[in-house]
Amino acid sequence: MPRYKLVVEYDGTPFVGWQRQDNGPSVQAALEDAVLRFCNERVNVFGAGRTDSGVHALGQVAHIDISREFPADTVRDALNAHLRPAPVSVLSVERVGDDFHSRFSANRRDYLYRIINRRAPLALMRNRAWQVLAPLDAGAMHAAAQALVGKHDFTSFRAAACQADSPLKTLDSIAVARDGEEIHITLSARSFLHSQVRIIAGTLRNVGEGRWVATKVAAALAACDRVAAGPTAPPYGLYLVQVGY
Amino acid sequence: MPRYKLVVEYDGTPFVGWQRQDNGPSVQAALEDAVLRFCNERVNVFGAGRTDSGVHALGQVAHIDISREFPADTVRDALNAHLRPAPVSVLSVERVGDDFHSRFSANRRDYLYRIINRRAPLALMRNRAWQVLAPLDAGAMHAAAQALVGKHDFTSFRAAACQADSPLKTLDSIAVARDGEEIHITLSARSFLHSQVRIIAGTLRNVGEGRWVATKVAAALAACDRVAAGPTAPPYGLYLVQVGY
Repeated sequence: MPRYKLVVEYDGTPFVGWQRQDNGPSVQAALEDAVLRFCNERVNVFGAGRTDSGVHALGQVAHIDISREFPADTVRDALNAHLRPAPVSVLSVERVGDDFHSRFSANRRDYLYRIINRRAPLALMRNRAWQVLAPLDAGAMHAAAQALVGKHDFTSFRAAACQADSPLKTLDSIAVARDGEEIHITLSARSFLHSQVRIIAGTLRNVGEGRWVATKVAAALAACDRVAAGPTAPPYGLYLVQVGY
Repeated sequence: MPRYKLVVEYDGTPFVGWQRQDNGPSVQAALEDAVLRFCNERVNVFGAGRTDSGVHALGQVAHIDISREFPADTVRDALNAHLRPAPVSVLSVERVGDDFHSRFSANRRDYLYRIINRRAPLALMRNRAWQVLAPLDAGAMHAAAQALVGKHDFTSFRAAACQADSPLKTLDSIAVARDGEEIHITLSARSFLHSQVRIIAGTLRNVGEGRWVATKVAAALAACDRVAAGPTAPPYGLYLVQVGY
């Protein structure tokens, strides 16, 4: 059967997350329903990463197998037409070989965590960024974050619900930069543990506010204990930016 | 009575516009209701510009007179607490003299019009930008727009409902620039006519798509006739960025 790779953007706010669940609308179900309406086939839409409820994607990747061969742009336009009014958009579709798997073929995932650092509530960026009231030192956050780069046991930065076999992950890069009142944390790795980025963001806030010295991040990592790290930052600041193959 | 200057951000999507109206929620009414809950006074909130339904503000300015003297930050925090859950945020409050008037003292208004130029629907930027499908030449739009700079009769770029006494306005600057799939039109003037920015945006799209040669913008201006200009671009791409005094 022809396999298609989809690059997908979504606003995670109204969804229970990427994955189909009984308790509410998911991005996966929205896409599967759109495929059904498009070509009358019930398919599984396989995603590269299972984002949590409220987490956004600028470039999630998924793949589907459908029995008929269509031009890739026809699949894109048809799925978008059938996705309305869900805030899910298929940015591009590409015909790929049977050996392509959105999740297992991926060798790189880029995430962005957006913080807006100000006193006034968010009007335009509500549900799109984490508002932090106390002034943050982005330079200190960036410096402290470098202790996380490389291959480590990330047990301290892993949700209890994490289903990964091993807590060993290699963080390829992390950068923290301020642009006006906004602070961006950008991260890249082959793969991440459940809530890893959000726990890193919550931990770096402690550094940015001056409540933690930078060395405490390295100590939290070394402790291999979830309670040694900071709190889990909220989902709505997190964006899956792109998946590399 | 003490007068306070407010700088206000809002998501225009759920509002009938800035101005209080009988047919739905307005930003002005949301602020006036918040003042009432804060200090039990019914005031008029005077805004620098009456944005239309769906138009956003990053830095609208308003002023209020309330009988008691409060620290400016107290006014800001109290209004924000009482504004919830409306997507309106008071960014800053400043105590000003009786001669300050948000509208009549203003000598500069900066607007931004955001276009996202792509085929796929907008998920994260829905109601936050105008999606244009056909490829736009931002350089051609910028060049053509320069014909609008200066003091002109802007009758061609004025909504029928415009209440200004004169169609003469001085456009201080306009720039069109592309950043990836996004095109930003930035404009600055002492004041604008009703829908002026949106008609300019709709006209420049004609140029960007190649359907209009650049000189047709100057000709539309010279015609002093609304039908000579392009269509009115939708409100949700428009942002009142800041007001200068």
